[in-house]
Amino acid sequence: MKNEDEQPHFAMNGGDGPLSYLQNSSYQRRVLEFAKAIIEEEIETKLEISSKHNHGLFCIADFGCSTGNNSFPAMHAIIEAVKRKYECSDLKTPESYVYFNDVVSNDFNTLFSSLPPFRRYAVAAVPGDFHGRLLPPSSLHFAYSSWSLHWLTEAPKAVADSGSPAWNGGEIVYTRERKEVCDAYLDQFGKDVESFLTSRAVEMVEGGLMALLLPGAPAAWDPEKEYTMVSLVEPLRSSLVNMALQGRLCKAKSETFNFPGYIPTPEELISILQKSNSFSIERMEILKPGTLLTVDGHVAFFRAVKQNMLTHEFGDEIIDETFNLLKKKLQSSPAYANPSNDRTVVVVVILKCNDV
Amino acid sequence: MKNEDEQPHFAMNGGDGPLSYLQNSSYQRRVLEFAKAIIEEEIETKLEISSKHNHGLFCIADFGCSTGNNSFPAMHAIIEAVKRKYECSDLKTPESYVYFNDVVSNDFNTLFSSLPPFRRYAVAAVPGDFHGRLLPPSSLHFAYSSWSLHWLTEAPKAVADSGSPAWNGGEIVYTRERKEVCDAYLDQFGKDVESFLTSRAVEMVEGGLMALLLPGAPAAWDPEKEYTMVSLVEPLRSSLVNMALQGRLCKAKSETFNFPGYIPTPEELISILQKSNSFSIERMEILKPGTLLTVDGHVAFFRAVKQNMLTHEFGDEIIDETFNLLKKKLQSSPAYANPSNDRTVVVVVILKCNDV
Repeated sequence: MKNEDEQPHFAMNGGDGPLSYLQNSSYQRRVLEFAKAIIEEEIETKLEISSKHNHGLFCIADFGCSTGNNSFPAMHAIIEAVKRKYECSDLKTPESYVYFNDVVSNDFNTLFSSLPPFRRYAVAAVPGDFHGRLLPPSSLHFAYSSWSLHWLTEAPKAVADSGSPAWNGGEIVYTRERKEVCDAYLDQFGKDVESFLTSRAVEMVEGGLMALLLPGAPAAWDPEKEYTMVSLVEPLRSSLVNMALQGRLCKAKSETFNFPGYIPTPEELISILQKSNSFSIERMEILKPGTLLTVDGHVAFFRAVKQNMLTHEFGDEIIDETFNLLKKKLQSSPAYANPSNDRTVVVVVILKCNDV
Repeated sequence: MKNEDEQPHFAMNGGDGPLSYLQNSSYQRRVLEFAKAIIEEEIETKLEISSKHNHGLFCIADFGCSTGNNSFPAMHAIIEAVKRKYECSDLKTPESYVYFNDVVSNDFNTLFSSLPPFRRYAVAAVPGDFHGRLLPPSSLHFAYSSWSLHWLTEAPKAVADSGSPAWNGGEIVYTRERKEVCDAYLDQFGKDVESFLTSRAVEMVEGGLMALLLPGAPAAWDPEKEYTMVSLVEPLRSSLVNMALQGRLCKAKSETFNFPGYIPTPEELISILQKSNSFSIERMEILKPGTLLTVDGHVAFFRAVKQNMLTHEFGDEIIDETFNLLKKKLQSSPAYANPSNDRTVVVVVILKCNDV
C-alpha cells in the first residue's frame, strides 16, 4: 500500500465549533435533499438484489464523508430504500454495513461521536485517498460520493510551471478565460475520475449502483453579475497575492499556489464518465438548488473547506486576515449582492457497475 | 444496532502527549514481544489456508487497539507469519485487511495519523463494544486482542449495592479477600468473555485463529511484599476515599464506584474458555515478563488507562490530586520498592474457530 503522506490531501475543518465543516456545510446538505428522490427511484428500479449479488450483507461506502453530518442522512436514505426493495421481494433483507471514507487526516473521531444512536447499520471508517483501492474486491453494493470528486489528487503541474503555456502564476485571472489553464485542470480531473472509477470497479459487485453528486458550472457566465462555486477561488487567490504584496507571505509561493480542485461543466463530466468500460450511466440530472448563502455564509463555507490546505501552505497566522480580505472582496462585488445570481449547478449521476 | 452511548465504555488517553496511552504503554508492548513467537508458531502449524477459507483476502481484527502503537507491530507480525505460510504453499498470498476496533470514544484520529507508512495491508476502523457484533458474518480469519478482555461491560451491580453480600463500598479492602466481591466480578467476567466469543464465532471463518493476551494474577500473593496488576486498584480507590473525606468529592459516589475490570487467574480463564462450543483451545502459555516499572511508571501507566473513566465519574479537577495521592501510597509501600516483586502474569491463549 502506498504511503498516504506522500500526497497533499486535506481534510475539511474538524470538530463541531463555529469554523467546523459540520457547522458550515448546509449547502451540501441541501444538495442531498434535492438528490434523495433520484437515488431512491434508481434503487427501486435499477438495483439488482438476487442472492447472486449479496450473501446476507449489503455494503455501502461514502467516499468523502468528512465528519459525517451530511453523510448520515444519505446513508439512512439509501438503506431505507434498499430495505423497501427487499421487503417487496421474497428475499431476506440483508444486514447493512456502511464504510465511511475520507483522507487520513479527516476528523473521524467527530464522525464516530456523532453517529446516529439508533442506526440500523454497522459502521467502519476507511481512511485513505479514494483515487486508489480501499476495500476488498467485490465487496461493495452501493458507492456514494457527494461534493468530493471535484477535489483533485494535485493541482496540475503545468499551472505552477512558469515555463508552461498553462502557467497560472502572478496575475489574477478567472481561469476559464485561460484555455491552457482550464485544459490542464480538466485533464487532471479526467485522470482522477478515471482512477476513482477503476478502483471502485474492483471493489463493487456486478450490478451495484453508484451515486455521484458534484458541483457543476455552466460553460460561461457573466462574472460582473453572476457567480458560481468556481468564482470564489479567484478572490481568494487575489487575497493571498494582496498579502504577498504587503510582505505578509512569500510572493513566489502565492504565485505558484493553485487549488487542487476542478468544477466541470455537466458536458465535461458526462464525456469523462462515458469513457468507462466498467460503469454505465443510468441517469444524470442537473439540479439548480441555489446557494441561499450570504457573503458571510460563503466565507464560512469556503473557510471550513480550504483552511487546512492554506494553513499547510502559508501558516495559520495568515488565515483570519485572508478570509477577512475575501469577505471584503465579495462584499464589494455586485455578483454576490443577491444569492439568486448563483449559476452553480448540482450534477447527480447514477452509474451501474457492469459485468466485466 | 444498539445505542453505544447507553454503556459506559472508556477509551485510553488519546493523543501522543506525556499523559497519553501512546507514551505510557511500554508494558503492553513488552507483552507482545513475549507472545510474538507463540503466535507465529501457531500460525505456522495451525492456520488453515485452503481456498475454502479465504477468497484472496485475509482479514485480521484487533479488538481493543487503542491509538495503535502496540497494535501495529502485532498486526505486522501476524501478516508476515501468514505470508510465510502462503509462500510455503502453492496458494497465492491473499490481500491483507486489518480492522482496528476500540470503543466509539477511542482516539482513532491518532491511530490513523500514526499508521506505518509502508504497511502491506489495507485498514479500517470499527468503533464499538467488542462484546457485541461488529463485523460481517464469516469475514474474519484472525482475531487478536491484547490487554483488553479484562475490561468488563460494567462493574457487577452487586458490588455497588449496599444491600448485597457483595457490597464493596466504604472500607478499602483488597477485593480478593472478599469472596462475594470476587465471585461477582468473576461472574461478570465470565459473561463478558462469553459474549465476546459468541460474537466472534459469527464473524470468524471456520478454522480461523484467535490470539488473546490478558493480564493474569496468581490465586494469592503477599500484599505486604508483592504486587500484581490487581494491586493498583485498591490504593487508587483509597485515594478517592481520602479525597471524599476531605470533601473534595462526593463520599457516596466514591463508595459505590467500582472499576469495570477483572484480572483472572489462569485457571479461571481456562475454565471460562473451555465452556465455548465455538472455539477450541489450541495452546495456553503463562508468561512472567515482569513490569520493570518504577512507581512513576506505574502511576503514568494507570493514569493513561483510567483517567477518562475517573474524569467522567468525578470531574477533571480531581485527577492530578488523585494520582499524586496514588503515587505517595505506592512510594510508601514496600511491595513497590522493587519491580521484581511483581507477581502479574501474562496469559497467552490461542483458540481455533470450530466447524459449527
